[in-house]
Amino acid sequence: MGQSRSVGDVGVDAGGVVTGTRPHVLATYVIETSLPLQRAAEVLAGEQSTGTFVRVARESDDLRARFAAQVESIDEIPPTGASPLPGAIGDPGARRRALLRLRFPLDNFGPSLPNLLAAVAGNLFEIKELAAIKLVDLDLPGAFAERYPGPAFGVDGTRRLMSRSEGAMIGTIVKPSIGLSPEDLGELVGELATAGVDFIKDDELQGNGPTAPLAARVRAVMPVLQRHADRTGVKPMYAFNITDDIDRLEANHDLVVAAGGTCVMVCVNLVGLSGLEYLRRRAQVPIHGHRTMFGALSRSEQVGFSFRAWQKLVRLSGADHLHTNGISNKFYESDAEVLESIAAVREPLLGLTPTVPVLSSGQWGGLAHATYSAVATTDLLVLAGGGIHGHPDGSAAGVMSMREAWESAARGESPAAALEHSAALRRATEVFGPVRA
Amino acid sequence: MGQSRSVGDVGVDAGGVVTGTRPHVLATYVIETSLPLQRAAEVLAGEQSTGTFVRVARESDDLRARFAAQVESIDEIPPTGASPLPGAIGDPGARRRALLRLRFPLDNFGPSLPNLLAAVAGNLFEIKELAAIKLVDLDLPGAFAERYPGPAFGVDGTRRLMSRSEGAMIGTIVKPSIGLSPEDLGELVGELATAGVDFIKDDELQGNGPTAPLAARVRAVMPVLQRHADRTGVKPMYAFNITDDIDRLEANHDLVVAAGGTCVMVCVNLVGLSGLEYLRRRAQVPIHGHRTMFGALSRSEQVGFSFRAWQKLVRLSGADHLHTNGISNKFYESDAEVLESIAAVREPLLGLTPTVPVLSSGQWGGLAHATYSAVATTDLLVLAGGGIHGHPDGSAAGVMSMREAWESAARGESPAAALEHSAALRRATEVFGPVRA
Repeated sequence: MGQSRSVGDVGVDAGGVVTGTRPHVLATYVIETSLPLQRAAEVLAGEQSTGTFVRVARESDDLRARFAAQVESIDEIPPTGASPLPGAIGDPGARRRALLRLRFPLDNFGPSLPNLLAAVAGNLFEIKELAAIKLVDLDLPGAFAERYPGPAFGVDGTRRLMSRSEGAMIGTIVKPSIGLSPEDLGELVGELATAGVDFIKDDELQGNGPTAPLAARVRAVMPVLQRHADRTGVKPMYAFNITDDIDRLEANHDLVVAAGGTCVMVCVNLVGLSGLEYLRRRAQVPIHGHRTMFGALSRSEQVGFSFRAWQKLVRLSGADHLHTNGISNKFYESDAEVLESIAAVREPLLGLTPTVPVLSSGQWGGLAHATYSAVATTDLLVLAGGGIHGHPDGSAAGVMSMREAWESAARGESPAAALEHSAALRRATEVFGPVRA
Repeated sequence: MGQSRSVGDVGVDAGGVVTGTRPHVLATYVIETSLPLQRAAEVLAGEQSTGTFVRVARESDDLRARFAAQVESIDEIPPTGASPLPGAIGDPGARRRALLRLRFPLDNFGPSLPNLLAAVAGNLFEIKELAAIKLVDLDLPGAFAERYPGPAFGVDGTRRLMSRSEGAMIGTIVKPSIGLSPEDLGELVGELATAGVDFIKDDELQGNGPTAPLAARVRAVMPVLQRHADRTGVKPMYAFNITDDIDRLEANHDLVVAAGGTCVMVCVNLVGLSGLEYLRRRAQVPIHGHRTMFGALSRSEQVGFSFRAWQKLVRLSGADHLHTNGISNKFYESDAEVLESIAAVREPLLGLTPTVPVLSSGQWGGLAHATYSAVATTDLLVLAGGGIHGHPDGSAAGVMSMREAWESAARGESPAAALEHSAALRRATEVFGPVRA
């Protein structure tokens, strides 16, 4: 198994010479184990670099010194009381929880995201010495940003394309999620454009099925948006869900762009980070990154990825927009978690163009003040499905309620002041409840 | 929210006419909830098809009848006592566990694996009404096999290429996992070929780093194997790990094939199912599917995918070989789980060419009898890393011990008889312990 060394930046070059700093990746995990923490950390480091279950020929000390993952730090944290992962060995009473940082030499995998993942997020989830193992952060060297350019449009490019130079970008999701005929979709999009929405997206469930295939949706939607643009000078951005097999992504993208579309959406976990990256190399419009299936990777406290770690990989892979969820959402995440996710997406990363956080799920105008007071920015894409379509006075009033609420929040007003100024917001509260402070 | 209907095969066509059987997907979940089971099932079905949190315009009864996911069956099962997923709502004392089957109209997504996943494995993992939500099986209509051809080589193609027409296919993993120079790798491969191994693979940690890039490994390995083939008529199969960005997969594959290589390996979860499928469309040799990172998706009892559900997607995407783990492995899975996984991979699936189960992790000759008595086949690729490299008499004796043990098991002999006939197996027990019955 790998030896634990706390020698920091020291490496050994091909000639066996100890050198100074070599590029490395720092991976931070939450672990639980019934073994001594140091021992469990060494098992993990060994499994993910030079180790097998017996020492083998050609596994020299030099090789270990150069390629072994090193235990950088172990900080014990309070247990949560969650059940251990199945198959965890050792005395349950001895179980402890810790934040563990491991240092991996970049030379082990090079600046390749898939190969990085084999080391920092591969077999380790199956290690029986661990009763919890979750990757919660990744610090990557600059070599990754040299290989992966990240978003091509980001906040500024998105604002430019939708003609919304300041303020929260207000968007919506086509509802019902699936089943609308292209004709009905075109009609709905016309209403939403007239309502003044900045952005419309397909539901992630709306792929390329036979009743409303992508080509038919593009044909139904783009002329409507083009006519709106001709009248008003503003073309709302429509994110067509082009998620599909890799070999279809480029053609799907091209179909959208040829019709004057300004955005494509992919479900990142369904095409893979690699599929997103493949699209990024070819995309001429912003890529709207949907996070569906993320719960499978992240909802357990005991295994998988935190949003913080995962979103760095997604941004490197080129998502211009990334779903973070919103406060008071209809899913499992607490407001604190959502706000951490939004902050994480807004943190600088290796000099990449900033990705736009996308707030969605159960959103409506009454959440603007509470959200803004926590995030202090309007560089956000805020999506309301039911919150716009379900406004008692229709979608135009729904958009108005969202826009006026966000403008009020950004001016530093109280919710009470917003309600005073905005009739649309007042009416929204009749359906969606009080404005959150 | 979607309405629960138990009407089975009934559908409604575009003209509103009720029709007979329409193609559909049956997804089976384990769920836990503190809500009434029927209510939780309806929330799930609604979220994954026509629903949003308020009823919206154009959401007609006809649309729901045609596109809503239907609750097919709910069968209560005993609780496991595992902690609920974070964010689950309701009275913890009321929590119940059930096997839930949902029926999704194929028209909702068409026979596209990424779009299928949005429906059967998308946002549902985040639903707060659920305290557990794991996709445990998928029954897919034939349309998927029309679009996805599955493995091109499978069991027969693999046997032919490695000249091993019967008996267990015995393989090994290059160890140390990473850090070997190409020269050392070539030397090691020569030893292993001479030792009589059928198959050798790169470790999943060995990607395309600067110290042993793929091109250098191919240059070091293939001439050695070619010389061995010239001498013996048998070319052991070497699975080069070509995992990388999508745009590099084809070139990596071509590099291997141009040098006479007969197999490529990808880490399925690192390139995505879509990446595997992309490679399948281009591959001229078998694809060895590594399952690394699978634990992140599956180890929790409460969320994610079972191996049974996941392997169907991998086989459709074209993996000729697929890692199942082996009994007495060094990871968390029980022998019963491993044996179920091997059986699942061997089950017929939509007429696809059979995928080879790959047994690995802690394997050695002493596990042959116990494995064979459970699986009753030698259409397996059995990989031993330490179990071959760490044999007290070297790798040739390691291979011999594996081969003789599997031949003995397949003849129906007892472990005692195997030990009597095989000196190599006797010696292996000195390091690895007694043969398992």
